[in-house]
Amino acid sequence: MSDVETRLAALENRVGELEDANAIRRLHWAYGYYIDFNRPDDVAELFAEDGEVTFLSGVYVGHAGIRRLYGTWFKNFFLAPGEDGPAYGFLLDHFQMQDIITVAPDRQTAKGRFRGMLFGGSHESRTFKPEGLPLQFMEAGIYENDYVRENGTWKIKRLDYMMQWQGDYETGWARTVAHLQPLLVPYPENPLGPDRLLPEDKRRQTWPHRQDVPMHFAHPKFGAVLAGAEK
Amino acid sequence: MSDVETRLAALENRVGELEDANAIRRLHWAYGYYIDFNRPDDVAELFAEDGEVTFLSGVYVGHAGIRRLYGTWFKNFFLAPGEDGPAYGFLLDHFQMQDIITVAPDRQTAKGRFRGMLFGGSHESRTFKPEGLPLQFMEAGIYENDYVRENGTWKIKRLDYMMQWQGDYETGWARTVAHLQPLLVPYPENPLGPDRLLPEDKRRQTWPHRQDVPMHFAHPKFGAVLAGAEK
Amino acid sequence: MSDVETRLAALENRVGELEDANAIRRLHWAYGYYIDFNRPDDVAELFAEDGEVTFLSGVYVGHAGIRRLYGTWFKNFFLAPGEDGPAYGFLLDHFQMQDIITVAPDRQTAKGRFRGMLFGGSHESRTFKPEGLPLQFMEAGIYENDYVRENGTWKIKRLDYMMQWQGDYETGWARTVAHLQPLLVPYPENPLGPDRLLPEDKRRQTWPHRQDVPMHFAHPKFGAVLAGAEK
Repeated sequence: MSDVETRLAALENRVGELEDANAIRRLHWAYGYYIDFNRPDDVAELFAEDGEVTFLSGVYVGHAGIRRLYGTWFKNFFLAPGEDGPAYGFLLDHFQMQDIITVAPDRQTAKGRFRGMLFGGSHESRTFKPEGLPLQFMEAGIYENDYVRENGTWKIKRLDYMMQWQGDYETGWARTVAHLQPLLVPYPENPLGPDRLLPEDKRRQTWPHRQDVPMHFAHPKFGAVLAGAEK
Repeated sequence: MSDVETRLAALENRVGELEDANAIRRLHWAYGYYIDFNRPDDVAELFAEDGEVTFLSGVYVGHAGIRRLYGTWFKNFFLAPGEDGPAYGFLLDHFQMQDIITVAPDRQTAKGRFRGMLFGGSHESRTFKPEGLPLQFMEAGIYENDYVRENGTWKIKRLDYMMQWQGDYETGWARTVAHLQPLLVPYPENPLGPDRLLPEDKRRQTWPHRQDVPMHFAHPKFGAVLAGAEK
Repeated sequence: MSDVETRLAALENRVGELEDANAIRRLHWAYGYYIDFNRPDDVAELFAEDGEVTFLSGVYVGHAGIRRLYGTWFKNFFLAPGEDGPAYGFLLDHFQMQDIITVAPDRQTAKGRFRGMLFGGSHESRTFKPEGLPLQFMEAGIYENDYVRENGTWKIKRLDYMMQWQGDYETGWARTVAHLQPLLVPYPENPLGPDRLLPEDKRRQTWPHRQDVPMHFAHPKFGAVLAGAEK
């Protein structure tokens, strides 16, 4: 009977880990869908209470910081006063793909790498045109995120979006200097700014500059957990 | 012994649910591959007998309707008379990604949200050029689909493709009014038309118009089933 | 007790198969991330010792062949002498998606279909410009790969990348003849060439030519293994 008990417990753990990976993938895909439609409250709920976002070498901390980034800043930047959700003639499609998720052995934390592609801009017939935003543009980036199980539900602990390039649609990435540059002025001096800046030696210059994006997983077994080794 | 029985049954159900989600994701990816290559019979087989497709605010019903859409219409529109499958110099790539799948507790039905990107058009050296189709264009859309287990196999019960935007390659989405507009004339008056139209108040104006695409899942736990909560 | 034993063994196998599919998906996504950043040694480690790559109708054999393709050729072609990893102003983003994975009943081999999209090129401010490479371009292709479990870890046995089209960014796929053509001169006569060529009747003409890309899976049940049939 103790053999059955051991095998049951092992199976329960392996199945739990597969469910964890699915839940975390789903969490990131949901993140993508929510930011498309400017839903900052829904985005914030995907994060742990002390969750944070690294964006343009600045760190937005906690639900307040996350709402400042995805709510105040995004709405100020992208939408006309009073506009909300999907706006006429405005595009902000965040395509998400290529998930590599590693769940820690105790199944309380996890890491995830993803890749996103962004097609955005305004239709020429839209009256409001965001200042400083190209009329139409493409962008891509890589995420290396941390996750935590909080009260039984997987949440984003730290989202790190590393923009790789931007391209004005008219001229392409070969002739574009990224319209987004590293953030230099934190909140509250900059009312849309991050709660803190990354240290200067960690600051990431944007396209056409490149940096490596180290992977969270060990190579070539990718960490034992999801390696598919015979068990 | 009854405890072992209970744990075995719970595991069998959880594993079955993981297999269901994989099967449904696979079903949608296969759908994407089949429509790339103009294979309407293969597409129809992915659907339940009474399956349907909502496309451009029209509903194509059953295998006959599905073949009318992916066979008669697509072939009439995209291919020269007698052309089949992949045609010289013709592109219709449907990239599929970002799956959010929720299996019902009884594992007989499911819902799935996906996102697709389409790159299409004709090479300048192709003699046949589809009328009304831009020479080269991009498109993206979101799917909110229903699935059903039919005779032991997952099938599409209802595919709802909500096109989000189209862009002529030459001028981009900022300067394009979608070449596809809501369908207004049903079959058989329109021999390529849908079996019925969505009610007028559900009709979706196409790009540059936008609408919300409500998600099938409850937020933030996304429904209990795949939430990864400790079990 | 033998019933419990039977059910435990069945569950262990089903869970193993789900882990296999996850491991293989992860393997392909890792492949995508590594080639973005010109890491040929990491790429080679993803392959079985006798693994091979079919690219442009040529076959690169074993780790030596794989390093010739992803190392010698890619670096010669894409990077300036002495440049390594992510290079200033150089883009080679391989977006990976749409996985269809079928694990063999004995769980020692598997097949996988994937789709990739490539955005590449050089920023105008980059001094080195690869000869014969468009300043900025897009590409897409479909993979039909074989996998093998080698010493307990899933590895790529055979990667078959079937490029579907290329498009110069300036003019688009409608006005581009693929800059990559089928390979005709093998190694060592061509120091960057493949170890062997596909037979002439298997040679794939590139865009605007098209060919079918048959799917490894049986339709419509896709092979029993992942079909999600009631078990």
